Amino acid sequence: MTTIGDNSNPGGIAAGQLRSLVERIESIEAEIKERNRDKSGVYQEAKGAGYDLKALREIVRIRRQAPDERQEHETILDLYKNALGMVA
Amino acid sequence: MTTIGDNSNPGGIAAGQLRSLVERIESIEAEIKERNRDKSGVYQEAKGAGYDLKALREIVRIRRQAPDERQEHETILDLYKNALGMVA
Repeated sequence: MTTIGDNSNPGGIAAGQLRSLVERIESIEAEIKERNRDKSGVYQEAKGAGYDLKALREIVRIRRQAPDERQEHETILDLYKNALGMVA
Repeated sequence: MTTIGDNSNPGGIAAGQLRSLVERIESIEAEIKERNRDKSGVYQEAKGAGYDLKALREIVRIRRQAPDERQEHETILDLYKNALGMVA
């Protein structure tokens, strides 16, 4: 008996295995896309509640940094601001 | 009775609501990171099975396109290849 289709092996490629890998990657990518839609939904909800999205995105970005990394960044930023006379 | 902490309201900001929004975004981002790790894992598995990752990534990218979009791209690509004498 011969099999036709996914398990055929043209060019030494196990099509079934390859297809399975590709489909697993696509399935994960679909989940990522869905999660990104969820994230956009939360931002839209925040916008609807009157929050400034640019500031909100920056808060999320800052919280992603380690505290010492954040502190170092703030220190350098202040240094540059002072050097340029950008003192509030 | 007064409440202290998350539900305080400095500058007219409902800290509890803001914190909830930020934490929901962070939770979704953590899931996306996890899914990206899963995806890397599948690619590593494919590499271990002897697949070429560059070709595999291109297959995934091509399959993401709509069939007509893909066909149009192939046609234009062939046109350019022919114009430049890059015929295989």
